[in-house]
Amino acid sequence: MATFKDIGIAAGFNILFAVAFLVAFAILRLQPFNDRVYFPKWYLKGLRCSPTTSGLFVSKFVNLDWKSYIRFLNWVPDALKMPEPELIDHAGLDSAVYLRIYLLGLKIFVPISILAWAILVPVNWTNHTLAKAGIQDKLEYSDIDKLSISNIPEASNRFWAHVIMAYAFTLWTCYTLSSEYAKIAAMRLHFLASERRRADQFTVLVRNVPPDADESVTESVQHFFLVNHPDHYLTHQVVINANKLAKLVKEKKGKENWLDYYQLKYLRNPTQRPMKKVGCLGLCGNKVDAIEHQTSEIERLSKEIEEERERVKTDPSCIMPAAFVSFKSRWGAAVCAQTQQSRNPTLWMTEWAPEPRDVYWSNLAIPYVSLSIRRLIVAVAFFFLTFFYMIPVTIAQSFANIEALDNRFPFLKPIIERGFLKGLIQGLLPGIALKIFLIVLPTILMMMSKFEGFLSISSLERRSATRYYLFNFINVFLISVITGSAMEQLNSFLHQSANEIPKKIGAAIPMKATFFITYVMVDGWAGVAGEILRLKPLIFYHLKNFFLVKTEKDREDAMDPGSIGFDTGEPQIQLYFLLGLVYAVVTPVFLPFILVFFALAYVVYRHQIINVYNQEYESAAAFWPDVHGRIVFALVFSQIVLIGLMSTKNAALTAPFLIALPVMTISFHLYCKGRYESAFVKFPLQEAMTRDTLERAREPNLNLKAYLQSAYIHPIFKNDEDEEDDDYPNGKLDESVLVPTKRQSRRSTPAPSKLSGASSPEKLGI
Amino acid sequence: MATFKDIGIAAGFNILFAVAFLVAFAILRLQPFNDRVYFPKWYLKGLRCSPTTSGLFVSKFVNLDWKSYIRFLNWVPDALKMPEPELIDHAGLDSAVYLRIYLLGLKIFVPISILAWAILVPVNWTNHTLAKAGIQDKLEYSDIDKLSISNIPEASNRFWAHVIMAYAFTLWTCYTLSSEYAKIAAMRLHFLASERRRADQFTVLVRNVPPDADESVTESVQHFFLVNHPDHYLTHQVVINANKLAKLVKEKKGKENWLDYYQLKYLRNPTQRPMKKVGCLGLCGNKVDAIEHQTSEIERLSKEIEEERERVKTDPSCIMPAAFVSFKSRWGAAVCAQTQQSRNPTLWMTEWAPEPRDVYWSNLAIPYVSLSIRRLIVAVAFFFLTFFYMIPVTIAQSFANIEALDNRFPFLKPIIERGFLKGLIQGLLPGIALKIFLIVLPTILMMMSKFEGFLSISSLERRSATRYYLFNFINVFLISVITGSAMEQLNSFLHQSANEIPKKIGAAIPMKATFFITYVMVDGWAGVAGEILRLKPLIFYHLKNFFLVKTEKDREDAMDPGSIGFDTGEPQIQLYFLLGLVYAVVTPVFLPFILVFFALAYVVYRHQIINVYNQEYESAAAFWPDVHGRIVFALVFSQIVLIGLMSTKNAALTAPFLIALPVMTISFHLYCKGRYESAFVKFPLQEAMTRDTLERAREPNLNLKAYLQSAYIHPIFKNDEDEEDDDYPNGKLDESVLVPTKRQSRRSTPAPSKLSGASSPEKLGI
Repeated sequence: MATFKDIGIAAGFNILFAVAFLVAFAILRLQPFNDRVYFPKWYLKGLRCSPTTSGLFVSKFVNLDWKSYIRFLNWVPDALKMPEPELIDHAGLDSAVYLRIYLLGLKIFVPISILAWAILVPVNWTNHTLAKAGIQDKLEYSDIDKLSISNIPEASNRFWAHVIMAYAFTLWTCYTLSSEYAKIAAMRLHFLASERRRADQFTVLVRNVPPDADESVTESVQHFFLVNHPDHYLTHQVVINANKLAKLVKEKKGKENWLDYYQLKYLRNPTQRPMKKVGCLGLCGNKVDAIEHQTSEIERLSKEIEEERERVKTDPSCIMPAAFVSFKSRWGAAVCAQTQQSRNPTLWMTEWAPEPRDVYWSNLAIPYVSLSIRRLIVAVAFFFLTFFYMIPVTIAQSFANIEALDNRFPFLKPIIERGFLKGLIQGLLPGIALKIFLIVLPTILMMMSKFEGFLSISSLERRSATRYYLFNFINVFLISVITGSAMEQLNSFLHQSANEIPKKIGAAIPMKATFFITYVMVDGWAGVAGEILRLKPLIFYHLKNFFLVKTEKDREDAMDPGSIGFDTGEPQIQLYFLLGLVYAVVTPVFLPFILVFFALAYVVYRHQIINVYNQEYESAAAFWPDVHGRIVFALVFSQIVLIGLMSTKNAALTAPFLIALPVMTISFHLYCKGRYESAFVKFPLQEAMTRDTLERAREPNLNLKAYLQSAYIHPIFKNDEDEEDDDYPNGKLDESVLVPTKRQSRRSTPAPSKLSGASSPEKLGI
Repeated sequence: MATFKDIGIAAGFNILFAVAFLVAFAILRLQPFNDRVYFPKWYLKGLRCSPTTSGLFVSKFVNLDWKSYIRFLNWVPDALKMPEPELIDHAGLDSAVYLRIYLLGLKIFVPISILAWAILVPVNWTNHTLAKAGIQDKLEYSDIDKLSISNIPEASNRFWAHVIMAYAFTLWTCYTLSSEYAKIAAMRLHFLASERRRADQFTVLVRNVPPDADESVTESVQHFFLVNHPDHYLTHQVVINANKLAKLVKEKKGKENWLDYYQLKYLRNPTQRPMKKVGCLGLCGNKVDAIEHQTSEIERLSKEIEEERERVKTDPSCIMPAAFVSFKSRWGAAVCAQTQQSRNPTLWMTEWAPEPRDVYWSNLAIPYVSLSIRRLIVAVAFFFLTFFYMIPVTIAQSFANIEALDNRFPFLKPIIERGFLKGLIQGLLPGIALKIFLIVLPTILMMMSKFEGFLSISSLERRSATRYYLFNFINVFLISVITGSAMEQLNSFLHQSANEIPKKIGAAIPMKATFFITYVMVDGWAGVAGEILRLKPLIFYHLKNFFLVKTEKDREDAMDPGSIGFDTGEPQIQLYFLLGLVYAVVTPVFLPFILVFFALAYVVYRHQIINVYNQEYESAAAFWPDVHGRIVFALVFSQIVLIGLMSTKNAALTAPFLIALPVMTISFHLYCKGRYESAFVKFPLQEAMTRDTLERAREPNLNLKAYLQSAYIHPIFKNDEDEEDDDYPNGKLDESVLVPTKRQSRRSTPAPSKLSGASSPEKLGI
């Protein structure tokens, strides 16, 4: 088991890394040529332009103002300064609420840490169980174990302190959770109510329109809703399968970029016309004049696109049995979204339309039967993914424990035992091994969710997050606990049965504290500090800038602002909640490490959200029920583990008192679900009616039909129409002043305004 | 273990009982003085009257027509003759669908039995495992075990036959289940569509109306719905707490009956005025003139009732924060029932109003927070009930196994071992012991459901049925399997862990076949035959008739037609589904016993539904999703048990093939749920609109408001109004011709008509 010294070395390394990242960031962000890497959000909003200070040429790239280096830590107060309402305006409710998850972590764990250090640490410390066992059985133990529950003798009355603390922690967590749920439900409703008119407020997505021999889909939809919602139906937009068209348009765009590039090249060096090989990848084949070649290619593609567009518009096989139906009032849409339309619940399925930019177009036409089969396939695939992934993780984990390694391979002892190296290995190896395994995973999980047939990007991300959390729970948490311990206890652990699992985990939990402390430092501290450095986007931006950027628009494309990444970020935070709640009673020493993570991550992500990330959609914090549910799950799990641990300590008397905890927690969860969840799922008619009435009073002559007509056109058609007549029908009514700035960075720098309306046009579609 | 002979003796006894019951029934039902016991349904419908044949006085009580005795088994074809649509008209959809559960049992188990006997029985029989083991280890075995899976040697390839059969049985069961679900969903929708106008089609129950300082509840409701459903709101009816009034009215009714009785007595014997003691129970105190006393009492009560009625109508504390809100169209009601009204989902909660006669009035005012606490309390109470009930059942069970008894108490051997007595004990004891435990239970479970706050009698019964099934599953099925086996295997069984449970049950299942066969015979065969005899109602009717019946109306009250009793009946059937599915692969000998039960019960209950039971409400088969779900549960359970059994037989190779079964079955269930369940929960807008349009075309001048105004008045007020102006606003628009017949049996016997409109007015309230 690791000693304080080992932990100290590991902490030192990780703090070193974290500080190095932060210093590097502080310096790099001041360089003008990195400006687009560290402040892309402002560029996308059109509120910042490429720095062109008068003066030296070099000052275009390197910041020579030494004063700014003195204030290099200024970003921290800057990040914290922006008040929450302005943050919501600036980056959307999703981002603001996402930050509140970190805050929630602090709210839960700061009082818990104080209580635990004030009461549990002295209770654990003033025993000599481990010291005695160390003498008698030559049991190795570390100082950290002396502060943990392991140091309490069996069947001691001191366990009552832990039971009381478990109650206190549970009550505090539940209180914080429910007040947070109430707060966020209120924020969501306020956000929805105070928003401007949006197409999705009036629109419902209808799927599985039944085929009709006599009518086309559009006629069928129109008739159905004219009959069944006669007072409310306004218009509709049939969903068109334009995947091939989208591919062609993409190809054409690439060619256009190349054309720009060659023309630029020719302009710079007019003596030589640029040539190009037409073979594969431009490496072989005949040389031709590049500009002419690209021009002819573009012409060909334009023709094909025109043909395909005509085909898509007229060919009935391209029309999917789905439609976006718009209503005259929010009330009508709310009614249609929440009710069942037809006898057969798998036909005429209605649900709220996602925001136009949130729609995941490819999945709109999946029939009901296929959906349930897909769900089954994905469930089975996820099961196998989860349980076969375990094998490599287990192998990596088994190397993570130096003592075990020593016992297994005694010849390695002299090498490993050198203090410094030992600390290094123990500090970095296990965390990194795990991290590598986890990098490729989110992509697979997202593919699964897409295959499963969700209709909006936000729901795809939520589903992926759920899977990722499950995966983390089983393969990072459980397997780390059990396998590591299995090695320590030399097979005595295996061959046990299912209801022993809480006991097994409970007994192993205190022993794995050091492992998870290093994990928190590597993944949490250094990882978060690495996030703010944005090493990957930094390198990629400069590579692209050097080799590929031909036009100003390309430079804009080369920026990779990224987004919060709910599907990977949130499960990671949840792992910390789980660790914190599990170790709160068992090894209170653990808690400060978690606190540092939450505080650091809060500052870093607040900075990133303000300056970097560009959220692709706005789901108005629809993810909160998931966040809440997972914290409750972690709480219940920690209680069950504690029961298991207590029963191995011959403190059986405490068990009946502890069993009430999960029961209480689960009923607390059910209460919260009933009380708050519907705010995230349904849209109350009262709200809808209020807004309708207000709007009717304010704008009696509003032409809603014109407004809604083209809101849900496939993004391919949208962009084209946009190019043709520049009448951009964006889902969120962006200020028309702001829209042009998206095309090309303006040279003037207006003062930052509070106006929202965020994303880039390229991001709107998918 | 029981031999064929033991089973034969037990079967003989039970068949004897069953036949005795049936013969007794066949004779008793022909006696005119039992007419009201065996044909109450027809009396209540006013289609049959007390037999007053001209002729001998004695023929009023005893049937002297010897010819009718020859045709005494005629009730069987009579019961089967009525076609299903007429049955639905006659007894309602609930009853007709309830019968289909038995039919479903036959549909599932007839082909399974044939297959099992054709394939599995020969496969099992042609082995000598048990015979060999019997010689080697002196293992006792019975002939029944030779037909079961126990007779297959370990790791035999013959197990593949069982695996294939498990697949065949699963596929067949799923196919039958899904086609039945589809059929019943269609029946329900057809029934709802073809029904006459009913108040609950237009009405929504609103609960948790928030208190308003400036408005009364009724104003608040009116304003809210006028604002939020301006085009559809019609009228509403506030719920009034009239429990005290109901008590007073009941008291008055009792006194009126006594008055009738004394007046009758005085009429018969005018020489002596009837006297009565005024003390407790009429046994002590001063003697007074009975008629005068009762008259004055009635006057006093009438006055009190009048005062209480005034108080209830004016006192705001009697007005509950709930209301029945009626709409102008079915569409409007469907919309309101399916949507969320207010920001806070626990206020203005809307749901479909139950039928007026289905409403459980006392629970209408429970606030949301109290509801979730009640749910928690009931869940905990049910947990304790389930697991402390086990103790007596276990003790009774341990006596059920003669061999175990022999081993434990060798001195009993000479007594028990007498062949006949042995069969008797083994045949009757275990079943009866269990049955007695189960008699008191439904009342407790119903009290729990009432406490939990359900709003309609049908949902109370559904919830009780779920609990009863769980109870049966754990305390009848599981404990019988495990405890009995624990005795046989002499403690080797205890002290095992959780994931061994399928193995444990799987291994024990074949050994308990004989126990469950006797259980089926006692509970199923003799029990069902006892049901048709109606011994308890028969005795009670004649007792009441002799001692209490004073008026013709009392005679009507003395009839106790009962109802199906979904809360106890359905879980009982489900136990047979469970047993049948579990034993289908393991001990196919079991299946014919189940088949006999289903066939007998189908005939008996069909007869009872036609002639006896009087359903108190009509939920249009809302219980089917529960029925379906429990059969699926039994199927999955049987598959898991089979996996456990196979793994104890060293047939591990078959496990991967079997694991796919529960996965398939569960996804089948999810598919069915998505496809059909909503037909039982929601009301599609298309249907609503169709019916609205039709009605508007047919009756353009319908005064709906007048029709709905008083539909949801508390039954207490209803009865009073009814007495006053005889304008009976029944929920189901009964033919006005039929209504008066409920008051007094008509002397003429019209031909049975197909008109529905069933229940007695006394039954409407609760």
